[in-house]
Amino acid sequence: MSLKPNLQVVKIGGNVIDNPSALASFLTDFASLEGPKILVHGGGKIATQMAASMGIESQLIEGRRVTNEESLRIVTMVYAGWINKSIVADLQALSCNSLGLTGPDGGIVVSKKRAAQPIDYGFVGDIIHVNASSLSGLITAGFSPVFAPITADASGQLLNTNADTMAQALAIALSSAYDVTLTYCFEKKGVLLDPADDDSVISSINPASFQDLKDKGIVSAGMIPKLENALKAISAGVSVVRLCHADNLQKVDIGTKISA
Amino acid sequence: MSLKPNLQVVKIGGNVIDNPSALASFLTDFASLEGPKILVHGGGKIATQMAASMGIESQLIEGRRVTNEESLRIVTMVYAGWINKSIVADLQALSCNSLGLTGPDGGIVVSKKRAAQPIDYGFVGDIIHVNASSLSGLITAGFSPVFAPITADASGQLLNTNADTMAQALAIALSSAYDVTLTYCFEKKGVLLDPADDDSVISSINPASFQDLKDKGIVSAGMIPKLENALKAISAGVSVVRLCHADNLQKVDIGTKISA
Repeated sequence: MSLKPNLQVVKIGGNVIDNPSALASFLTDFASLEGPKILVHGGGKIATQMAASMGIESQLIEGRRVTNEESLRIVTMVYAGWINKSIVADLQALSCNSLGLTGPDGGIVVSKKRAAQPIDYGFVGDIIHVNASSLSGLITAGFSPVFAPITADASGQLLNTNADTMAQALAIALSSAYDVTLTYCFEKKGVLLDPADDDSVISSINPASFQDLKDKGIVSAGMIPKLENALKAISAGVSVVRLCHADNLQKVDIGTKISA
Repeated sequence: MSLKPNLQVVKIGGNVIDNPSALASFLTDFASLEGPKILVHGGGKIATQMAASMGIESQLIEGRRVTNEESLRIVTMVYAGWINKSIVADLQALSCNSLGLTGPDGGIVVSKKRAAQPIDYGFVGDIIHVNASSLSGLITAGFSPVFAPITADASGQLLNTNADTMAQALAIALSSAYDVTLTYCFEKKGVLLDPADDDSVISSINPASFQDLKDKGIVSAGMIPKLENALKAISAGVSVVRLCHADNLQKVDIGTKISA
């Protein structure tokens, strides 16, 4: 039996961010979670819309945004500015003592610009270090950190970072001090056996069944990196990893559970 | 003799934010200040330029921006997103353990939407409460807070807030626990007797001489609210208040000193 305190790390996806009533309902559920908790949010369509309104076209390669200098500025503004502060203010109004963060804040996440080969994703950062003691100090002080997926390298260069990976890295880094539950909330009820059937949720996935799902083409291109993050988390010390609909955050037995 | 620890609260104005080399030099000086410190930054021209590129016109009344829903979104993105996180990442690269904040983060600053009479400034917030213990907890933990001038009311409505006033309110709130020095850094060497002569710095201003400067029309419309903030701070417990050029942050005897 673990003597470590519980900690919830929750990732909320862009489709929920884009839906004001779904987001409000989710934030109410998140605020009422007991014990220490961290929220990591994605970006949604606002950055793409904003870029379009400024005449800047977004480019995606394999579902990942290519981040040039202009789009780095836009994602930093939208993710770390508008979305992050809107969520923080909403949570404060719900009596959740939220604190909005990005990687460089408190030196919590340090990343490195991804190599330009084989594909140049531009100003995209891969996480190389999480300062768990800086982060757990904030949690111990009673704050609920809310992370936008923006990081910086050691020289201070801001970098766009995948939010699923950020949630995974934070969960792993905190797993030596906490009994961590990592929940990926999105617009589906879990990983689906049949994309056309919203109720065909696969209740449990482990490394072997993941390989099988990939071989059979059942999990889609967008789901593969999410599941890779989930499997990495469970293998690296996170106690519970689950993928579920944003409506089901508090229903701990619903969705897709990940096992090692 | 005071037994309270020292704390520096520094406000940096928009004209310095707009000048990359001046900003870099200022941040180096700020990072090397000894002891606990807080930075409050203004917005600069980036928000206005961004609004223009999106076809939204900025409106100013008596030097204060009128903030409609679209411009609230833009200032939140630019101030709390791009400018705040760029400064935080730069300070971290200078080994200053910065932590970017706005009013709702950690519930530190609560504001109230300004009454629409006599002038409707839109989504503009006047500070009604500073949670000094939440803020001093972060300072004690070793962080250097960096504030963007965005706050929220108790219902979670984000509001645009004057950065000079924010610096003043933070300095006053912390003055019961700290011996606070408040420094307003801008692009002039201090308050000038002759706006055409950059070296005509008035070395000291108190309430009586401020009234005299106003009566004689020596201080300009833009300088009056800044001096009102400075005088309010010194009368409400802040130990030292100074206005100086951003280049002179560390030259404590240069600029305009405010006395009660």
